[in-house]
Amino acid sequence: MNRLYQKLLPYIEKNSAYDTALTLLSWDTETLAPPDAGALTAKAVGILSEEAYHVFVNDEVISLVEQLSTEKEIKTLSDTERSIVRHIKRTYDRLSHIPPEEYREYAEFCATAQQIYCHAKQTGNFSEYAPVLEKMIAYTKRFTAYRAKKGEKIYDLLLEEYEPGFTIKVLDPFFAHLKEELVPLIRKVCRHNDKIDKSYNYRSFPIGKQKKLCNFLAGYIGFDFNRGVISETEHPFTTGLHNHDVRITNHYYKNNLESAIFSVIHEGGHAIYEMGIADTLTQTPAAMITMGMHESQSRFYENLIGRSEAFWAPVYPKLQKMFGTTLSDVSLDQFIHGINKAEPSLIRTEADELTYSLHVMIRYELEKMIFNDECEVSELPKLWNQKYEEYLGVTPQNDTEGILQDIHWAMGSFGYFPSYALGTAIASQIYAFMEKKLPVEDLLRQGKLSEIREFLREHVHQYGSVYDANTLLVRMTGEEFNPDYYIDYLKEKYTRLYQL
Amino acid sequence: MNRLYQKLLPYIEKNSAYDTALTLLSWDTETLAPPDAGALTAKAVGILSEEAYHVFVNDEVISLVEQLSTEKEIKTLSDTERSIVRHIKRTYDRLSHIPPEEYREYAEFCATAQQIYCHAKQTGNFSEYAPVLEKMIAYTKRFTAYRAKKGEKIYDLLLEEYEPGFTIKVLDPFFAHLKEELVPLIRKVCRHNDKIDKSYNYRSFPIGKQKKLCNFLAGYIGFDFNRGVISETEHPFTTGLHNHDVRITNHYYKNNLESAIFSVIHEGGHAIYEMGIADTLTQTPAAMITMGMHESQSRFYENLIGRSEAFWAPVYPKLQKMFGTTLSDVSLDQFIHGINKAEPSLIRTEADELTYSLHVMIRYELEKMIFNDECEVSELPKLWNQKYEEYLGVTPQNDTEGILQDIHWAMGSFGYFPSYALGTAIASQIYAFMEKKLPVEDLLRQGKLSEIREFLREHVHQYGSVYDANTLLVRMTGEEFNPDYYIDYLKEKYTRLYQL
Repeated sequence: MNRLYQKLLPYIEKNSAYDTALTLLSWDTETLAPPDAGALTAKAVGILSEEAYHVFVNDEVISLVEQLSTEKEIKTLSDTERSIVRHIKRTYDRLSHIPPEEYREYAEFCATAQQIYCHAKQTGNFSEYAPVLEKMIAYTKRFTAYRAKKGEKIYDLLLEEYEPGFTIKVLDPFFAHLKEELVPLIRKVCRHNDKIDKSYNYRSFPIGKQKKLCNFLAGYIGFDFNRGVISETEHPFTTGLHNHDVRITNHYYKNNLESAIFSVIHEGGHAIYEMGIADTLTQTPAAMITMGMHESQSRFYENLIGRSEAFWAPVYPKLQKMFGTTLSDVSLDQFIHGINKAEPSLIRTEADELTYSLHVMIRYELEKMIFNDECEVSELPKLWNQKYEEYLGVTPQNDTEGILQDIHWAMGSFGYFPSYALGTAIASQIYAFMEKKLPVEDLLRQGKLSEIREFLREHVHQYGSVYDANTLLVRMTGEEFNPDYYIDYLKEKYTRLYQL
Repeated sequence: MNRLYQKLLPYIEKNSAYDTALTLLSWDTETLAPPDAGALTAKAVGILSEEAYHVFVNDEVISLVEQLSTEKEIKTLSDTERSIVRHIKRTYDRLSHIPPEEYREYAEFCATAQQIYCHAKQTGNFSEYAPVLEKMIAYTKRFTAYRAKKGEKIYDLLLEEYEPGFTIKVLDPFFAHLKEELVPLIRKVCRHNDKIDKSYNYRSFPIGKQKKLCNFLAGYIGFDFNRGVISETEHPFTTGLHNHDVRITNHYYKNNLESAIFSVIHEGGHAIYEMGIADTLTQTPAAMITMGMHESQSRFYENLIGRSEAFWAPVYPKLQKMFGTTLSDVSLDQFIHGINKAEPSLIRTEADELTYSLHVMIRYELEKMIFNDECEVSELPKLWNQKYEEYLGVTPQNDTEGILQDIHWAMGSFGYFPSYALGTAIASQIYAFMEKKLPVEDLLRQGKLSEIREFLREHVHQYGSVYDANTLLVRMTGEEFNPDYYIDYLKEKYTRLYQL
C-alpha cells in the first residue's frame, strides 16, 4: 500500500465512526425519539458534526491528499483508493470554506428543521415552515457560494453533490426531452383510463397482514434480514450504518394495498444496493453512493421488476391467499393493469411510472428558480400549484398535498430530486443490458430473484461510488447515459397495456 | 461564573455529545440493530470511545480542574459546579492511566461481548461465554490496578464507581445484617406459603393487552411520553440521552401477568428519576446518577408503591375489566397477596421483595472472590449453584437459570449489583420519611401519583449526582443510610400478609 495513503487510514476510520453516529442519530430522530427530545439531541448533533468536520479539514489530511493527487502518486493507487482520495478532496473542498462554528450551527439547525417541517405538514401550515425553509436556503446559498468559482452556478454545484456531471446543461435537455415524449403519451393514456378498474386497491387490507406481506416481499427480492431491519415512519426511506446494517422504513394504509408494497420494493432496492457494497469499501467515503445510481436501483426493483407481470405471476396467488375473499375476484391480469394504471396525481411518491418524472421536473424547475434568485419562498406554494396545473392538470387543495409533501428541502437536500428521474432512466438502461445477458423474465417467473440481485451486485453494487454513474454505465454496458431506453420502455409498455 | 469554570464548558458539552452518541449506539444494539451488524458497529464504537476519552484526558482540562480544586476557587463554585468538577476529576483519574489505544480496544470488545453473552444465554452454553468473561475480568482488573493506590482493594474501587462510600467495609456488615434478619423470616413465611394461591398469574394474558396495560401504568405513575419511549427487549432496562429522552424496555410473557407489570413499574421509576433531573444538570457529568440512589427510585416504585394495596385499589378494577373473565374470580385481596407471595427462586429479576436481597448477596460474594483472585472463571457456575442452594435452598438446572441470567458482567459492570440491595433499602428509608410529610396511602387511593412524583423530584431527582447517596439522604431525612427501615418494613409487611 502507498505509504502516504496508509497515513490517511486513521482519518478514514474516524470519519466513518462519526458518520455512523450521526446517521444513527438521524435515523433515531425519524423513527423513535420522543417528541420533546429535539433541541437537546440537536445540540449533540451540532457538536459531533463540528468534530466530524475537523477529521478531513485539517492540514495533515489536505497535505496527504495533495501529495496523493500528483501524477506520480496517483498511478500507484488502486481505483478504490483513488476514489477515496477524490471523495476526501471533495469533502474538504465543500467544508473547508465554511467556518466550523457555522457548520455546527447549521447541523444543529438541520436536526430540528425536520421536526418543524413535519408539524407544518401535519397541520397544512406552510407559514410555519416558511422561515425554516428560508433559513435552509440561505445556509445552502451561503455555504455553496463560499466555494463557487467565478461563473459557477450555485445550483450546478448542488446538483453535482448528488450526481457528478449531471448539471443544468445536461438536465435541461433531459427534462425537455422527457416532456416532449411523455406528455402526449400521458394525454393518450388518460383518454383510455376507464379501461382499467383499480377499485380493488382501496378495499380494506389489515395492516398486520400487509406487514407480513411486505416483509416477505423484501426477503423475496433479496433484502437480508441478518444485515437489515424494517421500521415504520410517515415517509418510507432507507439509511445505513455500513453494509452489515441497512435500514428501511415503510408506511401502511389500511385502504391502500399498493402503497406499502411498492414502498418496500423501492426501499428494498436501495437496501440491496447498500448491502452489496464491497467489504473493502464499506466504512470509507467511497461507500457513499451517487444518488442517481442509488435511485436507479430502487426504481429498477420498484418498476422494471415490481410492476411486471413476470414478477407477480408466482407471487400474486400468495397475495390472494393472504387476503382471502378481498382479492378473490381480482385476476392477475386485472392486478397487473391496476398497478400500472397511469393517472395525473398530486403526490410524487404515489405517482405511477408514467407521470412520475413530471413530478420531479416541477421540483427541478423550482429549485433552479430558488438558486437563481428568481423567486421568494412566500411565492413557492403558488408556483408549485401552477406547475402542477400546467404539467399534470391537477391542483392541490392544500399545501400538505402540495409543496409540503416532500421532506427533502427540510433536510437541506437541494439538487437531490433530479436523481429520481435520472435513476428511473438509468434503471431502464440497465434492464435493457441485463436482458442481453440473463433470461430476466424466466428468472422472475421461476422466482429466482437472487440471480438478478447477484448480477446487479457484480455490475453495480459492489463498486459503491468508486465510479460515477456515467463511468459505471460505460463500464457495464459500453454506452453512456441514454434516456431513450426509458422512453422506449414506457412507450412500449403503455401502448401494450392500454392497447393504444 | 468562575472564569476557569467557564473554560471547562466546551469540554463538558463535548463530553455530553459523545455520551449521547455512545448511549444511542448501545441502545440501538440492544433493541434494534440487525444480527450481523455487530463487528462493524463495534469498530465505530471503539473509535468514538477513544475520541471521547481525550475530551477530559488532556492537559488543559486537568490543569483547569486542578486550579478549580484549590480552596480559593472551590469557594466560588455552586454545589452543582463543584460536583461537575469532581466528576470530571473522577473520570480523569479513572481513564488517564489507561493507554487510549487500550481503551479503544476495550470499548470495541464491550460492544461485541454482550452479543456473545446473549447467544450463550440462549443456548445455555457457559463455555461459549467463559473466554469473554475472563477477558472482561482481566481488562477490569488491569484498568483498575492502573489507578489503585497502595493498599486499595480492586473491588472497593469498582464498588465506588457505582455508589461512592459503599465499600466492602460497609457492605459486609450490611449484607450480614440482612442475612441475619431475613433468613429466619423467609423460613417462617415459606412454611405458610400454601396460604396464598397465585395460580391466576400464569393464565393466558394476550400480549397486546399487556402492552396497553403497561403503557397505562407507566403514564399513571408519571412516565412522560413526550420525553420517553418504551421498547421491547429480552431484559428490561432503562437508558437515557438526556432529561428529554429517556428510554425503557419491557418484556411480555403470555403466561405471566406480573412480569411485565413490575418491570414497567421498576424501569418507570428509573425513567421518572432521569426525566426529573434539573435542566441545568442534564448533559453534564453530574447527570450521571449514582446507582444506589437510582435503584432506590426504581425499587421505590416497584415495591413500596407497586406492591401496596393502596396503589392497586383504584387500578385493579381496570385490570379486571381489561382481561375480562380471566381475572373476574380473583379479588383485589387475592391479587395483593399474589404479587407479594415470597418464595425462594432462581431468577433475581423475578424474585419477590423478601428474597430479592439474597440474590444480590450471592453476586456480591462472587464478585469479591473474583477480584480477590480467590476463584477461576471456570469455577463460577459451580460456586453460583452452591450459593443458591445454601442461601435460598434452590438449585439451577442449567446455567441459563444460573450464572448466565444477568447481563451485567458482559457489560463490564462489576460492583454494580450491591446497588440493587442498597437501593431497595434506601427506598424504605425514603418512604418512611415521605410518610411523615405526605398522606401517601391516601394519595395512592385517590390516584394522585403526581404528588408522589413531585415530592421525589423535589427531594431526589432534580439533584442528579450533585450529592452522593448518603449526603442526599442526610439532606433530605436528617439521617444517614440506615437499613433498619427496610428490615422493619419487610417484617411488618410479611407478618401482616401471612398473619404470622
